[in-house]
Amino acid sequence: MDEIVNVAKRRAFIYAGSEIYGGLANAWDYGPYGVLLKNNVKQAWWKDMVMKRSDIVGLDSSILMNPKVWEASGHIKEFTDPLVDCKECKQRFRADQLEADKCPSCGGELTEARQFNLMFKTHAGPVDNEENIVYLRPETAQGIFVDFKNILDTTRVKLPFGVAQIGKSFRNEITPGNFTFRTREFEQFEIEYFVKDALSAKKAFDEWVKVRFEWYKNLGIDPNNLRLREHEKNELAHYAIAATDVEYNFPFGFSELEGIANRGDYDLSQHEKFSGVEMRYFDDETKQKVLPHVVEPSGGVDRAVLAFLVDAYTVERAWGEERTVLKFHPRLAPIKVAIFPLVKKEPLILRAKEIFHGLKEKWFVEYDETGTVGRRYRRQDEIGTPYCITVDFDSLEDNAVTVRDRDTMKQERVPISSLPEFLEKKIGV
Amino acid sequence: MDEIVNVAKRRAFIYAGSEIYGGLANAWDYGPYGVLLKNNVKQAWWKDMVMKRSDIVGLDSSILMNPKVWEASGHIKEFTDPLVDCKECKQRFRADQLEADKCPSCGGELTEARQFNLMFKTHAGPVDNEENIVYLRPETAQGIFVDFKNILDTTRVKLPFGVAQIGKSFRNEITPGNFTFRTREFEQFEIEYFVKDALSAKKAFDEWVKVRFEWYKNLGIDPNNLRLREHEKNELAHYAIAATDVEYNFPFGFSELEGIANRGDYDLSQHEKFSGVEMRYFDDETKQKVLPHVVEPSGGVDRAVLAFLVDAYTVERAWGEERTVLKFHPRLAPIKVAIFPLVKKEPLILRAKEIFHGLKEKWFVEYDETGTVGRRYRRQDEIGTPYCITVDFDSLEDNAVTVRDRDTMKQERVPISSLPEFLEKKIGV
Repeated sequence: MDEIVNVAKRRAFIYAGSEIYGGLANAWDYGPYGVLLKNNVKQAWWKDMVMKRSDIVGLDSSILMNPKVWEASGHIKEFTDPLVDCKECKQRFRADQLEADKCPSCGGELTEARQFNLMFKTHAGPVDNEENIVYLRPETAQGIFVDFKNILDTTRVKLPFGVAQIGKSFRNEITPGNFTFRTREFEQFEIEYFVKDALSAKKAFDEWVKVRFEWYKNLGIDPNNLRLREHEKNELAHYAIAATDVEYNFPFGFSELEGIANRGDYDLSQHEKFSGVEMRYFDDETKQKVLPHVVEPSGGVDRAVLAFLVDAYTVERAWGEERTVLKFHPRLAPIKVAIFPLVKKEPLILRAKEIFHGLKEKWFVEYDETGTVGRRYRRQDEIGTPYCITVDFDSLEDNAVTVRDRDTMKQERVPISSLPEFLEKKIGV
Repeated sequence: MDEIVNVAKRRAFIYAGSEIYGGLANAWDYGPYGVLLKNNVKQAWWKDMVMKRSDIVGLDSSILMNPKVWEASGHIKEFTDPLVDCKECKQRFRADQLEADKCPSCGGELTEARQFNLMFKTHAGPVDNEENIVYLRPETAQGIFVDFKNILDTTRVKLPFGVAQIGKSFRNEITPGNFTFRTREFEQFEIEYFVKDALSAKKAFDEWVKVRFEWYKNLGIDPNNLRLREHEKNELAHYAIAATDVEYNFPFGFSELEGIANRGDYDLSQHEKFSGVEMRYFDDETKQKVLPHVVEPSGGVDRAVLAFLVDAYTVERAWGEERTVLKFHPRLAPIKVAIFPLVKKEPLILRAKEIFHGLKEKWFVEYDETGTVGRRYRRQDEIGTPYCITVDFDSLEDNAVTVRDRDTMKQERVPISSLPEFLEKKIGV
């Protein structure tokens, strides 16, 4: 893991947040290549789950919501960890993570466990009183349930349909850790998929488990590093009918990338009860109102990015030398193409820059003229660029360039005029 | 403005946040079409300002930062509004917005004005004490300054260069209002553009004012509704050398869309002072270290979305009837194309769905078979879809369809096989 953290920093993917001030308990920033990778992950999800499907619409709801939302959802009451204090050294610990009933730091006596709510609390408006408390949302999902009625009323969705959302959530974790795996501020991609009854929910649940597992696989994750883990009955939240996690084999072991849950009609019925607003769907066929059941595929964007990064990271021998290469799926690679003049001579530079400026209208591309071509290849390998284009002296005659493939390291000659097509076929748009 | 708020809700662009619970002081959610519009605005900015340029890299830094950041930036001390309390009714007001020195609500006596900090405050970790205070960032800009050294060290940027970021910020405004114009939670797109000295900053400032004005114009805003407003010397923050706003003619008057500021070397020198980390750039040519100056084009995403929405909103007479149409630039339109079978007959439906599924791989498109074609046109006009495609009986013979233009309402016959090219030319990818 340390190796991944180092590479991620050195290659401008992920920096420690507020690093010049000594950081802030496991907060991380995405650097110039990291933000492109993260955007590509979010966009791949959005295109595959929303754009390409006919049964899902998007939403972007606020982080700050009326506190009654969290009463209805059960978060104010239930979203807690048990904490104990050491009576001697005053440190605080999670009771469920202690192995003995003495302080792990100083051996002192511990207090009884108290429930600590994981929602960040702040005050909106000029007075810091009880009435003005608002929470940073601990999940994006509730925004979807709260807007369910508005979506029904203002769009033409028909059951079954889903609502998809990408956005930040916050949990005041006592023990964040494992790089970007568990952080207090994180981004989620969530879908709430509404169906007419319990039977349909059971079917939709099985389908979603499959769809989400395949999604990670299709974006290049080695299937040997993925597995499904069904939750035991005693792990389930009281309202959940079933839950299965997609897990990835991180350096610290198989851990949750995404959870798919069959939540029954719990959420809509709670909000109906607490808000007094009817959450029913009128079924044109049966002429009846139904309270939809819901299946939720809920993934962590930062976890997905970390899994893609870990899985892409490869150290191998090539031409008798060691090379480090990030074998990202072309859709996810931060930089799609690098363009080099073979040597630093004006006619080659001009032609290379011309190609660079042309491709830059459509893709994130880089231009590099420093050092040997071999070194420039290595540099692009280390950030995962799938294709490198070299302009040589022949190019000035035959109007073709050498395109080198990151993974096979094979080179092929491609006419300059067909580069856009060639690249569109290889990496998409 | 009320008309815009209504249309925005009815057409699934913008809903009141937490509406079923009576809302939350001017919080808004982007509905199914709104999220697509907002995403398109952010993507247009990201492509034009980052992808297509060679001198700008991206960043995605955390919302929660080490509190020392806000000491260095001056936010803890200076980012305040003056507030007064009514001694009778206990209500609180902004002192600089009062016309008299009596309570505007009950006529009671007011307290002296006190400075109220606009940053949202919360606690990270299990103990709510002074040491654990963290703030929700009031601007994305500081993330860029704090990561400046990391970016210098891990990428190959050379002055002049910019760092661009899109993300949420939070300000505990006493009087939020004007729909999505002033909200406590909002999204920014900001660039910090670093140059080597004061003279270069002056030049870069003038260029950025032009670039950013043109950007709004090129995305379809009527230039008559845009203006530049130079800040008076007494409006400037103490460190700012110059500032100019791009303003839009909102229904409530010309107001700031984006501010371009010449901030000198204030930010980097403050962080150098407070963190003890050197923020200098080594100039290869002069072999000297310089503390870069910075020019900041800082825009509000929600304000941009609102301006694009207001500017696109058109009520006009067509064929003797009134029609409402959102004349979005094709890059910004939520749905790019709608596909209709002329009538609800199987061969037409099958052909139309085939086209729909083909185009859906690349664009957000809709399929509609309900009601007359005229009504379906109106429905798409109201959400701003630039092109409608109708499959008729001739299509089954000549493999061509009728493409109707939203703004001119003219129709042309296009071969089905050349639809992707036709659309790519008209709306991009």
